[in-house]
Amino acid sequence: MLLLRHCRGLTRVGLLKTQRVQLLQGAALPVAVCAGSLCARWGSSHGGHKSGQYQRSHGPNWRHALAGLLAGTGAVLAYGLHHSQTEQAAATIVQPIAPASSLPIYTQDEVTKHRSVEEGVWVTYKGSVYDITEFVSMHPGGDKILLAAGGALEPFWALYAVHSQDHVLEILSEYKVGELSAEDRLMQQSVKSTDPYSTDPERHPALRINSLKPFNAEPPPEILSDNYITPSAIFFKRNHLPVPQVDPKSYRLQVEGVPGGVSLSLSLEELKTHFPKHTVTATLQCAGNRRSEMNKVKQVKGLNWGIAAISNATWSGARLKDVLLAAGYRSEVAQQTSHVQFEGLDSDVTGTTYGASIPLNKAVSEEGDVLLAYQMNGEDLPADHGYPVRVVVPGTVGARNVKWLGKIIVSEEESSSHWQQNDYKGFSPATDWDTVDFKSAPAIQELPIQSAITQPVEGAVVERSAEEVTVKGYAWSGGGREVVRVDVSLDGGRTWQVAQLQSSEKGQVPAPSPPPGRAWAWKLWELTAPLPPVVQELEIVCKAVDNSYNMQPDSVAPIWNLRGVLSNAWHRVKVTVKEDEEKQKLL
Amino acid sequence: MLLLRHCRGLTRVGLLKTQRVQLLQGAALPVAVCAGSLCARWGSSHGGHKSGQYQRSHGPNWRHALAGLLAGTGAVLAYGLHHSQTEQAAATIVQPIAPASSLPIYTQDEVTKHRSVEEGVWVTYKGSVYDITEFVSMHPGGDKILLAAGGALEPFWALYAVHSQDHVLEILSEYKVGELSAEDRLMQQSVKSTDPYSTDPERHPALRINSLKPFNAEPPPEILSDNYITPSAIFFKRNHLPVPQVDPKSYRLQVEGVPGGVSLSLSLEELKTHFPKHTVTATLQCAGNRRSEMNKVKQVKGLNWGIAAISNATWSGARLKDVLLAAGYRSEVAQQTSHVQFEGLDSDVTGTTYGASIPLNKAVSEEGDVLLAYQMNGEDLPADHGYPVRVVVPGTVGARNVKWLGKIIVSEEESSSHWQQNDYKGFSPATDWDTVDFKSAPAIQELPIQSAITQPVEGAVVERSAEEVTVKGYAWSGGGREVVRVDVSLDGGRTWQVAQLQSSEKGQVPAPSPPPGRAWAWKLWELTAPLPPVVQELEIVCKAVDNSYNMQPDSVAPIWNLRGVLSNAWHRVKVTVKEDEEKQKLL
Repeated sequence: MLLLRHCRGLTRVGLLKTQRVQLLQGAALPVAVCAGSLCARWGSSHGGHKSGQYQRSHGPNWRHALAGLLAGTGAVLAYGLHHSQTEQAAATIVQPIAPASSLPIYTQDEVTKHRSVEEGVWVTYKGSVYDITEFVSMHPGGDKILLAAGGALEPFWALYAVHSQDHVLEILSEYKVGELSAEDRLMQQSVKSTDPYSTDPERHPALRINSLKPFNAEPPPEILSDNYITPSAIFFKRNHLPVPQVDPKSYRLQVEGVPGGVSLSLSLEELKTHFPKHTVTATLQCAGNRRSEMNKVKQVKGLNWGIAAISNATWSGARLKDVLLAAGYRSEVAQQTSHVQFEGLDSDVTGTTYGASIPLNKAVSEEGDVLLAYQMNGEDLPADHGYPVRVVVPGTVGARNVKWLGKIIVSEEESSSHWQQNDYKGFSPATDWDTVDFKSAPAIQELPIQSAITQPVEGAVVERSAEEVTVKGYAWSGGGREVVRVDVSLDGGRTWQVAQLQSSEKGQVPAPSPPPGRAWAWKLWELTAPLPPVVQELEIVCKAVDNSYNMQPDSVAPIWNLRGVLSNAWHRVKVTVKEDEEKQKLL
Repeated sequence: MLLLRHCRGLTRVGLLKTQRVQLLQGAALPVAVCAGSLCARWGSSHGGHKSGQYQRSHGPNWRHALAGLLAGTGAVLAYGLHHSQTEQAAATIVQPIAPASSLPIYTQDEVTKHRSVEEGVWVTYKGSVYDITEFVSMHPGGDKILLAAGGALEPFWALYAVHSQDHVLEILSEYKVGELSAEDRLMQQSVKSTDPYSTDPERHPALRINSLKPFNAEPPPEILSDNYITPSAIFFKRNHLPVPQVDPKSYRLQVEGVPGGVSLSLSLEELKTHFPKHTVTATLQCAGNRRSEMNKVKQVKGLNWGIAAISNATWSGARLKDVLLAAGYRSEVAQQTSHVQFEGLDSDVTGTTYGASIPLNKAVSEEGDVLLAYQMNGEDLPADHGYPVRVVVPGTVGARNVKWLGKIIVSEEESSSHWQQNDYKGFSPATDWDTVDFKSAPAIQELPIQSAITQPVEGAVVERSAEEVTVKGYAWSGGGREVVRVDVSLDGGRTWQVAQLQSSEKGQVPAPSPPPGRAWAWKLWELTAPLPPVVQELEIVCKAVDNSYNMQPDSVAPIWNLRGVLSNAWHRVKVTVKEDEEKQKLL
């Protein structure tokens, strides 16, 4: 019945709700046609097996199967979408549109009050207000639609390009209930103040904010693994200071300290044109990713990151190695010096800038792939990700991938910055703030093997009638070590099954294995397994293995450390199995 | 009193036992002098702190302190001893010596029957037989003396050069009870047969044999960590086939397959003189080290290794990179080919030789330090370790460090050998012999982080009166990742303490940190901690961390695999705390 309503929307527009329902109750023929055309479309990207799944889905589980299919298709299409289109779409949010109907005018405040099925689910799109409460249960992408509740659809549709089809707009139009006030449409453009963070860029509303100033946020886990290449808008943001406003025309990158070499001052244009452009797909992860799990053992200092302070993007720019060669670096220099320091253009009120360093051998290695990146996912770096130039150090903790790069210094010493010397280091669980000696531990560079479950999320409900459960997640290891296996357990770690690994967008030809030591990008993974009988709760666990056969530690407490970094124990998610109502009545 | 007897041996020789005891009971003055001279000697290698410890040792715990001191001194001296001396000492075992006394003649069989304090502890040295039963409790090196019970002292004294002092021989001479029969002294030289293993070399009697043919053996853990550089005689042996007899004069190393290059056939002399000699200290570890712990979870296939299928040595030879350059290798070759295969001269009855391969980038990297080694610990390679030439691939599983090297082949393919294709790979605990697909897992190359406890051993007894416990072990990680911390727990992993790391022979200046990614050698570690009150059992646990902050998994079952490789969970040793007898009586 719900499928009928959704399909009906493809062919018929503008009916009042009562009319629509009445009509659809008797509409057998159009439904069959519609289901067939959906199958054909999905078949092109999912192949025979999924079509088979669809055939089975006419039973009581059809909605779950349909949601899985369409979410998958969305991911495929989103990758194909040129990013500039999505940016344009986002930009239209604040364009005032003259009301084209006699429907009521609503303020943003009124819209914002409608964020649940109980209170009603309202969204805005191009200045119009929609009450989509009834559509929520029909949404082929499932509950994710609630991420947009009370706000604008545009940023979400930019992520899921499956929506950029006429029939989707037609469905939406059926739910229109009013217009957004002109004031609200203009308001977002006018916020200005002396707050150093006032010039920070707009952010995607789906991001879960850990800190507003400086801005630190991660995407909801259930959308993180929808794309192999994370859209820039939802790529996790980890800023230490306000986002600096950099004029690309006057920007200069300083390069200093190469023994026997010269100092360079490169314009953006010179960086782009004097050095070969090199592109790398690399995952970045914050050292504090999954810190919240350590906080549950014992309070640590730091932002309470969930599992999504990790994302994957393509980066393009000049090789650091090539720039150092231009500054006179020769291999004999490695005898005299051993670090490359980076200084950002972001600074605090005293003028102290963000800084970090990496070992020289990583910086100059032919196989290190360290970039002075000016593009992310094929476009200029977004402001939050270091516009106009950032360092990308594949395989290395996010903190060394300095954004808004101002200066490169080749040195005998590591960076003297707080973040290199007195932060981002690992300690024993026995070390506390009274006893810690930051000099006793090395600065984190390469990160250890990591994985986490993105779907289902903690507390989710799985229907017994579904008969199987699909588990999804990501896995990555530092230092260019390739993930070779992910084991998944549904019973807390007693028994295990091997997940399918995915090293490109779903539906695309898998990327060939990277050269040894240069596996910079994560793998997404997925396992669909029969629901174990009897049990009322699943404790889903994942653990990954890299090609040095490093494995994740089993539990959090023994790796707990006072800064809550390097949290890479097995990830655990508990979900409830809901018995069929008929069965429950019988019991 | 026991100290008195030991010291007395320094100045007085040849007394009958009854006389000796009587004399010593009244010998106050010589004892004071003796203790002073021991202090002076130890002070030179141990500094003031240890002297202080000795002062305390006049209480009931003095014997433990003394044992620790002398064992430590032994390790220091053993390193300084030129290895050829130890070899010469070992060689004298089978030299017949004309009986020089009228004492009884014993056969080796009779000596062998005396291997415990209950049955008497007999040993041989240069053809004489000694009953050292009474000396066992006085031995400054502790129970390790029992490793030699029923056999020859020479191979053990070769390991612990503290014994090569006149006064030690003087002490020994007091316990002489007879001569070894001339037949037995000659017998060991005469074993010959058609057994392909009949020409295998002599081995050190301390080795614990896992398989005799082919020979696979490891040292007892409690002597493994006595030396930072493992003496070759007790370095773990892992042979897949009989040890080949290679004539160094006719030996040729074949080098083939470099695209656009030439084939080489190098004599041993050419390898030694045409290429720079390069020395690396590197730890080798068998993929099956600690397999016995997996066997306890569920039976696996493979040799039942304990924790000592790992050892550390210095290796000298030509760089593989230099030899490949001589064969015409150029960096562009890396585009066409990606593996370097090695073939051993050891073969089975069908002529199949041992073989393995490593990635080309490791082989040709300036920082890979891959050697064609012809020396181990400053001497020609011993027969068991690949004489005359073996590959040493630092940071990589033992199985790729091909011994008795005959051929090097640069190739597009990995080695087709059984050991590369269908062995030495890791799988999920869910994979069994019915479902395993060896193609689905990568050949093990770099190994993961590892550590284990060498002292105390499982089941040992710690005296409550000792008030503290000393825990020792090793830690190492593959891929040149440096061990940066070892955590030790005395309570099964609930609380942790940080151990002291040791990266050179004890008492020597610590070696400087290796360049990033080139930490090929293990670290020994030690922790002396107060005995926890009340408890009657300690569950000692260790876990190590490398500089990519990889950590060991907590437990064995979740990393169990059908071949029992990569066993690197926390190592656990249970010991009993023995209450003082007085206290026990009071209870």
